[in-house]
Amino acid sequence: MSNIEPYIPMPLDDDKLKEECGVFGIYGHKDAASLTALGLHALQHRGQEACGIVTFDDKHFYAHRELGLVDKVFSSPKVIEQLKGEVAIGHNRYSTTGQTLKRNIQPLYADLSFGGFGVAHNGNLTNTNLLRQQLVQNGAIFQSTTDTEVIIHLVATSKQKSVADRLVDALKKITGAYSLVASAKDQLIGIRDPNGIRPLCLGKLGDAMILASESCALDIIGAEFIRDIEAGEMVIINKDGIQSLRPFGQTTSRFCIFEYIYFARPDSFVEGHSVYEMRKNIGAELAIEAPCPTADLIVPVPDSGVPAAIGYAEASKVPFELGIIRNHYVGRTFIQPTSEIRNLGVKMKHNANKSFIEGKNVVLVDDSIVRGTTSKKIVEMMRQAGAREVHMRISSPPNKYSCFYGIDTPSSGELLANQQSIENIGEFIGCDSLAYISFDGLYRAVGETKRNNDMPQYCDACFTGDYPVALPDHEADQDHAKVTDLREQSVK
Amino acid sequence: MSNIEPYIPMPLDDDKLKEECGVFGIYGHKDAASLTALGLHALQHRGQEACGIVTFDDKHFYAHRELGLVDKVFSSPKVIEQLKGEVAIGHNRYSTTGQTLKRNIQPLYADLSFGGFGVAHNGNLTNTNLLRQQLVQNGAIFQSTTDTEVIIHLVATSKQKSVADRLVDALKKITGAYSLVASAKDQLIGIRDPNGIRPLCLGKLGDAMILASESCALDIIGAEFIRDIEAGEMVIINKDGIQSLRPFGQTTSRFCIFEYIYFARPDSFVEGHSVYEMRKNIGAELAIEAPCPTADLIVPVPDSGVPAAIGYAEASKVPFELGIIRNHYVGRTFIQPTSEIRNLGVKMKHNANKSFIEGKNVVLVDDSIVRGTTSKKIVEMMRQAGAREVHMRISSPPNKYSCFYGIDTPSSGELLANQQSIENIGEFIGCDSLAYISFDGLYRAVGETKRNNDMPQYCDACFTGDYPVALPDHEADQDHAKVTDLREQSVK
Amino acid sequence: MSNIEPYIPMPLDDDKLKEECGVFGIYGHKDAASLTALGLHALQHRGQEACGIVTFDDKHFYAHRELGLVDKVFSSPKVIEQLKGEVAIGHNRYSTTGQTLKRNIQPLYADLSFGGFGVAHNGNLTNTNLLRQQLVQNGAIFQSTTDTEVIIHLVATSKQKSVADRLVDALKKITGAYSLVASAKDQLIGIRDPNGIRPLCLGKLGDAMILASESCALDIIGAEFIRDIEAGEMVIINKDGIQSLRPFGQTTSRFCIFEYIYFARPDSFVEGHSVYEMRKNIGAELAIEAPCPTADLIVPVPDSGVPAAIGYAEASKVPFELGIIRNHYVGRTFIQPTSEIRNLGVKMKHNANKSFIEGKNVVLVDDSIVRGTTSKKIVEMMRQAGAREVHMRISSPPNKYSCFYGIDTPSSGELLANQQSIENIGEFIGCDSLAYISFDGLYRAVGETKRNNDMPQYCDACFTGDYPVALPDHEADQDHAKVTDLREQSVK
Amino acid sequence: MSNIEPYIPMPLDDDKLKEECGVFGIYGHKDAASLTALGLHALQHRGQEACGIVTFDDKHFYAHRELGLVDKVFSSPKVIEQLKGEVAIGHNRYSTTGQTLKRNIQPLYADLSFGGFGVAHNGNLTNTNLLRQQLVQNGAIFQSTTDTEVIIHLVATSKQKSVADRLVDALKKITGAYSLVASAKDQLIGIRDPNGIRPLCLGKLGDAMILASESCALDIIGAEFIRDIEAGEMVIINKDGIQSLRPFGQTTSRFCIFEYIYFARPDSFVEGHSVYEMRKNIGAELAIEAPCPTADLIVPVPDSGVPAAIGYAEASKVPFELGIIRNHYVGRTFIQPTSEIRNLGVKMKHNANKSFIEGKNVVLVDDSIVRGTTSKKIVEMMRQAGAREVHMRISSPPNKYSCFYGIDTPSSGELLANQQSIENIGEFIGCDSLAYISFDGLYRAVGETKRNNDMPQYCDACFTGDYPVALPDHEADQDHAKVTDLREQSVK
Repeated sequence: MSNIEPYIPMPLDDDKLKEECGVFGIYGHKDAASLTALGLHALQHRGQEACGIVTFDDKHFYAHRELGLVDKVFSSPKVIEQLKGEVAIGHNRYSTTGQTLKRNIQPLYADLSFGGFGVAHNGNLTNTNLLRQQLVQNGAIFQSTTDTEVIIHLVATSKQKSVADRLVDALKKITGAYSLVASAKDQLIGIRDPNGIRPLCLGKLGDAMILASESCALDIIGAEFIRDIEAGEMVIINKDGIQSLRPFGQTTSRFCIFEYIYFARPDSFVEGHSVYEMRKNIGAELAIEAPCPTADLIVPVPDSGVPAAIGYAEASKVPFELGIIRNHYVGRTFIQPTSEIRNLGVKMKHNANKSFIEGKNVVLVDDSIVRGTTSKKIVEMMRQAGAREVHMRISSPPNKYSCFYGIDTPSSGELLANQQSIENIGEFIGCDSLAYISFDGLYRAVGETKRNNDMPQYCDACFTGDYPVALPDHEADQDHAKVTDLREQSVK
Repeated sequence: MSNIEPYIPMPLDDDKLKEECGVFGIYGHKDAASLTALGLHALQHRGQEACGIVTFDDKHFYAHRELGLVDKVFSSPKVIEQLKGEVAIGHNRYSTTGQTLKRNIQPLYADLSFGGFGVAHNGNLTNTNLLRQQLVQNGAIFQSTTDTEVIIHLVATSKQKSVADRLVDALKKITGAYSLVASAKDQLIGIRDPNGIRPLCLGKLGDAMILASESCALDIIGAEFIRDIEAGEMVIINKDGIQSLRPFGQTTSRFCIFEYIYFARPDSFVEGHSVYEMRKNIGAELAIEAPCPTADLIVPVPDSGVPAAIGYAEASKVPFELGIIRNHYVGRTFIQPTSEIRNLGVKMKHNANKSFIEGKNVVLVDDSIVRGTTSKKIVEMMRQAGAREVHMRISSPPNKYSCFYGIDTPSSGELLANQQSIENIGEFIGCDSLAYISFDGLYRAVGETKRNNDMPQYCDACFTGDYPVALPDHEADQDHAKVTDLREQSVK
Repeated sequence: MSNIEPYIPMPLDDDKLKEECGVFGIYGHKDAASLTALGLHALQHRGQEACGIVTFDDKHFYAHRELGLVDKVFSSPKVIEQLKGEVAIGHNRYSTTGQTLKRNIQPLYADLSFGGFGVAHNGNLTNTNLLRQQLVQNGAIFQSTTDTEVIIHLVATSKQKSVADRLVDALKKITGAYSLVASAKDQLIGIRDPNGIRPLCLGKLGDAMILASESCALDIIGAEFIRDIEAGEMVIINKDGIQSLRPFGQTTSRFCIFEYIYFARPDSFVEGHSVYEMRKNIGAELAIEAPCPTADLIVPVPDSGVPAAIGYAEASKVPFELGIIRNHYVGRTFIQPTSEIRNLGVKMKHNANKSFIEGKNVVLVDDSIVRGTTSKKIVEMMRQAGAREVHMRISSPPNKYSCFYGIDTPSSGELLANQQSIENIGEFIGCDSLAYISFDGLYRAVGETKRNNDMPQYCDACFTGDYPVALPDHEADQDHAKVTDLREQSVK
Repeated sequence: MSNIEPYIPMPLDDDKLKEECGVFGIYGHKDAASLTALGLHALQHRGQEACGIVTFDDKHFYAHRELGLVDKVFSSPKVIEQLKGEVAIGHNRYSTTGQTLKRNIQPLYADLSFGGFGVAHNGNLTNTNLLRQQLVQNGAIFQSTTDTEVIIHLVATSKQKSVADRLVDALKKITGAYSLVASAKDQLIGIRDPNGIRPLCLGKLGDAMILASESCALDIIGAEFIRDIEAGEMVIINKDGIQSLRPFGQTTSRFCIFEYIYFARPDSFVEGHSVYEMRKNIGAELAIEAPCPTADLIVPVPDSGVPAAIGYAEASKVPFELGIIRNHYVGRTFIQPTSEIRNLGVKMKHNANKSFIEGKNVVLVDDSIVRGTTSKKIVEMMRQAGAREVHMRISSPPNKYSCFYGIDTPSSGELLANQQSIENIGEFIGCDSLAYISFDGLYRAVGETKRNNDMPQYCDACFTGDYPVALPDHEADQDHAKVTDLREQSVK
């Protein structure tokens, strides 16, 4: 309702900047805005806070950006009609807790000396605080608190001539994870960071070319999947076709393995693999590594645990059963319970399927444990429904470290596995046994023989702390924390 | 936005009156409104158009009724706080297409000579048009177009003394299906029609007594399930405890079998059975009756087909697979596609899990086919994803007749199975084979040896046309249709 | 936002029922809804809480009723388009403090045995509580808490045949002040109570006939003023023309004199007089009765005091000056001041025109003093601006008694003049002299030689306590007040 | 609703940039935000489109800016509470037709190298298009389309050290009219352009210092008027007190004379004069210059014509009468009339006071005639009400030229007096005689002996075309117009 916004020049410690997002771009289709809205809708799981589309019609750029889901923000035919032109880029933003700034909604757009420039970013940059300070020293005025805006200012002040050269010039100064779609005049540009941490793929619909975070955004509009954009690759799409460049030279892929475990949609093909298949494979590996001989039934923790649970059930030949029923109508927690209501054990989102749980040995399969509070409640729900034994199997390794590449994670101190042994975690959540997939089991499931510890095939920093890209802002932030008192005394 | 409402005194042919709904009532808890909101939330699948709560605090009645889901309508703590008192009744209303009148939202409430009276109704009455005409002749003024309001006017004008006697007096004049919860001063009343077509059960939370359409509404608040209210039973709950009456004498249960097939939540116990178990049983019976020897995988049509598909897969020993992935963020169709976009085959709600479908023989399991258009699209989606064979199995008999007892069904002319043979339906939807569960298979699945054709154990009128309760309004309506032209010439 | 409404069957002591309102009706114009909206807009000063229009198109009735001003409620062309038909009635409702029930918005409408019936009411009924109790005993169900709904129930249960006869039958049971417009099928009915306390006039626009509270509602649509409806007269307008009846026989007019002093718009002709002229006349009489020999300038209290101030200035030959400037943009008090801000003397609505006040002897002319708090502030504002002497002249007699005929007044205990002598009032508001118009001065100004104390020519009960119509509800209420404690113990 | 905004880099011909506005600033009061909201409310007549406040609390800046009136935008206590700090600046923006950009709402704010910087601007700059182009060439990114943003970019890139020096550095590059309030860290800055075209005054409330467009904004909060800021003066207010600078050396005042005629509030003192008194004086001069011997009454055109009409009436000894009554409830035109309704002569805003007009010779007094359409309707309304003669007297000279200094005027081609002789204008609006005040009469009324044609004492460019400040953008625009076709062919 209100747009009260404290102007904090350097929100170094702000969770909100570490968002996960989805991007989409299309070149050469007369329904560009409609198709982009549909593509963003298919990518809604990648960001639910806000969304936006910027189009270009050979003369002007048009923008519509609002807080809310795609089906609300783009529900009005008028809005779509006003987004004229055959080139469009779009963005979904992750819903984080706390304050949300409208001016942070992407795609960002600016009028630069060469004309309009729009950009949508999935990922997170790791050295933009310092760059931002330098730019402001030179007179730049920022309108958002996003890391992405630094890219625009670097493009604006680049001495290069073409838009593509300016963008490369800008990105060479930047570290971090990014899959970008950008538009300028008569072109659509897509680019992935040298490690290709976030996904981006290329599709085709008739003569129109498409860029999207995941292939499910191609499926929704009936477009054909062509290929993934490679790590460190830049593609320039214009009326002459598509051109592929390698501005960073030879680079090594370190795709985010968590996209397979949890983040991507199961019906997407990402980096050459079916996400659903990867998840079933992990479940099957888990059944081999961590079997449960007493099990009567395998129960997925809805909804993300389902494919791994099917894999586990098949491999262990124990029946798969919907032992937890999800309420389809849960958008939000709407009752602010008195302590007494809370003690009643309110189950807004899930309910045990009591008739199948009572007296049984249950194996729960879930994708991850972050703080552990939900797992604890689910185990308790199984016990209340009469389960004899409750075993927990997790289709990822213990989540010990924060992500700085675009997934919103708590600080490491709040990550249960960072603080506690697996044994203690099992005790905390109250299950009879607890097992996580091993590193090698995980890498086997995604098609490797094992994790290459010298040069890991994936980014798995959230499990290992092995960060493939430097984190200058985070390190400065650590230093910074020591002088907070001083800072508070001086006036910003 | 606008409340423009044509005042149509006798909306005989209005689809909207044939709603399915959920009801909840609680007596003797200081968080009555909160618990009712939670109960309604658990019953949200029974009605998504609107909801309301009426409470009583020993002095006044309080009401809040709005269009929208429970989590929106009751999201404000202020609203809950203003709903004072330890007695509450609540109602969810089904979302039908077209015009929606705010004054139709239940619970209905009126100030009668003996004090306030509130009522929430699940079901549909079959002779209220005539009763309404008589009441209006005598000076009654209706404020809604619901059949339920007739009950209130009959209670208001009854010559009986106690509220319960007035209500029985009223219901003896009425035919149709109803599970009601009513409140008046210091009592909560629950009653099911003589055939018990719609469900209603009794629960307990500490000293508080609860009435709810399904047991899942007890689970959400941690209440204990006591028993189902019986067909033709009336319970009166007040400070002296609970009293059970049989105002209609001995009656025969004809519970709606479609509640098991589709309508009730899988985690509910209804009429003594686990809904999930019934659905798995039907799937298993279907696998025996209509096997598919070439099947590579069993794919549920999400989400309602899942339990039957698990049953079918287990019984047939063919792998169960999520071959269709649902987009979790589908609230509404938001893009009004140009014909060209429509031709792209927009898939807003579902996407094929291509990697598992390609080259496979797929058995789709769904609960019913109404108009057949969705089934046709899903089969086509499987073909486009590369399925070799696509077989369809339906966990209900062909749906041939309209329901007049509280489920919103199209007129029989729009029901595909009313117009076409199974063979033609299979051809229309484009599958390689199509089979429905048989009547006896269905009755076996729900625990009978077979259907008793002389005195069926359930109401299955939507499949058989065997209506257990008379339909005077519907018959008058048929006559009525013939004189429409005349009617239009006279002024209403 | 919320529709939480305590259901209080008998809101005997509720200020809100004593509203002042405006009514409008039109018969036989294809733009009936538009013209009614314009008419209501011209009558907006008679009620700002809510408004509504009910139309009839030979087959159906259509209604739109909302909280808010006319220009908001009827701003959408869609709303107007949906209000089909050539017959319309409309209503403006007065904005009172506190709770507002949407279901109280008029015109009220009901489907009765003879068809639809709509009614809009200006005035207040004085015996409807008892009538309501009787109707409820007989099974009537009320949906609003307005006195007006009693009329509809009496019409519904009347044994008479024609709508007009039923309405007369109903009104013969009722006491109070009313100017009604009603519509039913093919007719528009207008009626004033036997004393004609509230205004109602007849106009003509081409072939269309119009009823309106004041002539300014005719002017806005370019309609011709024909005549006032007489006290106790009923007019029936239908396709055969207009018919005038005197259902109550010979009656005596007691028009509300406060309409001239304050309530009606200055550009209206009401009961045969120009309102502006009446106000100037009162000012002139006041200048004669209560001159101010030291006066330098005559300053109206904006905006209602202007005509009387002009009259006073002309008669006393002292310059008329805008000594107080109104802020045109005051809709509401928007800052909730801390006590310190309040002490700053915030002047949201008015400001002294300092350069003209400083060092001068000022005569303030206002129409009335109710609680005196505003007058006190205005005198103080004059002093702060440097006025040497501040004299106050009031163009009405002291306001000592509550109105029960349709003007929202505080209880007599809160009326300053009911509790205090004129001397004390002058002291309280801090002026150097204070004078009110005398009764005979007031009657002279409106064209009489003097007040006929045996049979007053006007209703002046708010000044004299001489109530022309019995007040049974009010008297019952007085008795009632004594047993409140008892009432609270019993359950409603 | 929607924020669809075409990104037009150089909206050279956009009416909206030529807005009139109101500004307010306060230093050193703990209720800074509340007092600023009240001040803006008193200045609401200077801009109704949007408003905003930016505060500073020693650490952070806070902003709230929305479309709408002050009493709506700042109605929530939460909003005010969140605007922390003892320094605040505020802005009202003029409501123009057509598209409105939310990002244009002032005060503008940016994080610059030295910290936060906010600015609110009343006036219009005349050379910012060229400056903007240069800034963009150097990599600046604009977020609004306002001329004011150029100031911020010039401050951001200035090589000066202190904020005040940077601001002076920026303003020395700029031509045009401006009264600015700016805030940065621990200071509040006020500055008027070298000609002092727009007003700005200084006030005091306890220890707090205040800057405001007009003195009525001091009155509303009980603050004391100290003095006007002089033309070309800059004041810096901080904890050490107030410092006055003359950064532009000696300059000549050319205050906008139209502020006296129409724009300022009548209760304000502006540039040493009471506005109300100036208007009465003009009316009196007009009565001498252009008497009307046959006049029966002097009628102001509401509301702005009232003081001049009082002056005219007093000087001519003809009675002053409210011959036109304004409807107090006109916010907007809400009925979209069919041509037939339009022909009825809809009078939404005003009505003739018929009883006083009929048969009389009327002198209408108004402040100006722009396009003449309203004047024509008012004369016609007088005729329809029965006026015998209708004379028109205008309290300004003929309005012949556009304003480029902050008042939104039509292009000169649309100004009736630019195209037509006074005789023709009189004929067009249909009056019996028409007279405007003469230049010398106007200058006498405001206290001069006559207009000094060599060096006029005021800016009267809208009457004379004698523009005191150069108009480079406007001239470039004229050139520009010739190459429009070419521009449209190239892609922006």
